[in-house]
Amino acid sequence: MITLFQQSDSGNCYKVRLTLTHLGRPFRAVEVSSLDGSTRKPEFLARNPIGKVPTVALDDGRYLAESNAILLHVAEGSALLPGDAYDRAKVYEWLFFEQYSHEPAIAVRRALTVYPQRRAAATPERMAQLLDAGTFALSVMEARLGATSWLAGDAFSIADIALYAYTHSAHEGGFDLAAYPGIRAWLARVRALPGHVEL
Amino acid sequence: MITLFQQSDSGNCYKVRLTLTHLGRPFRAVEVSSLDGSTRKPEFLARNPIGKVPTVALDDGRYLAESNAILLHVAEGSALLPGDAYDRAKVYEWLFFEQYSHEPAIAVRRALTVYPQRRAAATPERMAQLLDAGTFALSVMEARLGATSWLAGDAFSIADIALYAYTHSAHEGGFDLAAYPGIRAWLARVRALPGHVEL
Repeated sequence: MITLFQQSDSGNCYKVRLTLTHLGRPFRAVEVSSLDGSTRKPEFLARNPIGKVPTVALDDGRYLAESNAILLHVAEGSALLPGDAYDRAKVYEWLFFEQYSHEPAIAVRRALTVYPQRRAAATPERMAQLLDAGTFALSVMEARLGATSWLAGDAFSIADIALYAYTHSAHEGGFDLAAYPGIRAWLARVRALPGHVEL
Repeated sequence: MITLFQQSDSGNCYKVRLTLTHLGRPFRAVEVSSLDGSTRKPEFLARNPIGKVPTVALDDGRYLAESNAILLHVAEGSALLPGDAYDRAKVYEWLFFEQYSHEPAIAVRRALTVYPQRRAAATPERMAQLLDAGTFALSVMEARLGATSWLAGDAFSIADIALYAYTHSAHEGGFDLAAYPGIRAWLARVRALPGHVEL
């Protein structure tokens, strides 16, 4: 059985739980906080030298890190990862977009807003820069989701799971989704799927 | 034939050229600069709504963006992407590490150093923060490359290509590789491969 080392309110960890739940794969969760320094302790760094959650121990005991790498690995061969080469490549594209252009703006602005330990870093300049970057990322999603049901190909995939994680809590970071009807309809579609679990 | 829309001195674009060259796949390169606003023009945004290079037009005319998504797509079925599920997952892990923890520090610090258009953003605070983040990323690579020849599994892969791109030019951003003998030996191994091309 997979062991998930997680901080349960992290969207990156939520992605992994949501994927495993959709796949019907049982897992064991172990809480490790990045806020109290636990992810930088030697016993955790032995599992993942980058010192981040989520990290998983697979069935054979070997470790894997990086949320979207975990999603790609566990979804291999399932309906959550398209078999068609181009649709699959579009999943990759959205996963890298999420980690480069979306999470560092939308998740970080939420963290600076909701975690008292992070508030010292929430300068007006930084918050304005994150708002701009996050608004751009949302506009890219809206351009796609205003026209189609799912981000990659024509079916729900791990691209939707990866982007759902921090988009559904974007309002906690000060992003108003009123201007994005395509995104709001997509959030509702994801939530309505059988097997959906909330954060 | 693949058409690569690129800014030729970008490491993210160099990754794609190096991968296609190792694969022996001919391609056509079209220069599009992110520095003069060309990547934000409507004709380019129609190809890639994120407005970034590299973007490729595949053999069938469909577009694909995000450098590491392009690498995964073109390397599918080749020796540059392991068939073993775990080794392949470790390639994914390094590719996401590269885009989240390496490129935003090491490539950005180089850009702020070498492009006159970017120098206004190179405040002492920002440069110090990027030095810390990039030094941490290099320490993670050194921990692996001090012990093994290649980043993922036991063979050269697109994980090595993706990390080579900005590691080999890290000194241009003020990173001194003297303290990383494992990384320096790996850079030499990559350069010595048949089919290697420089930036």
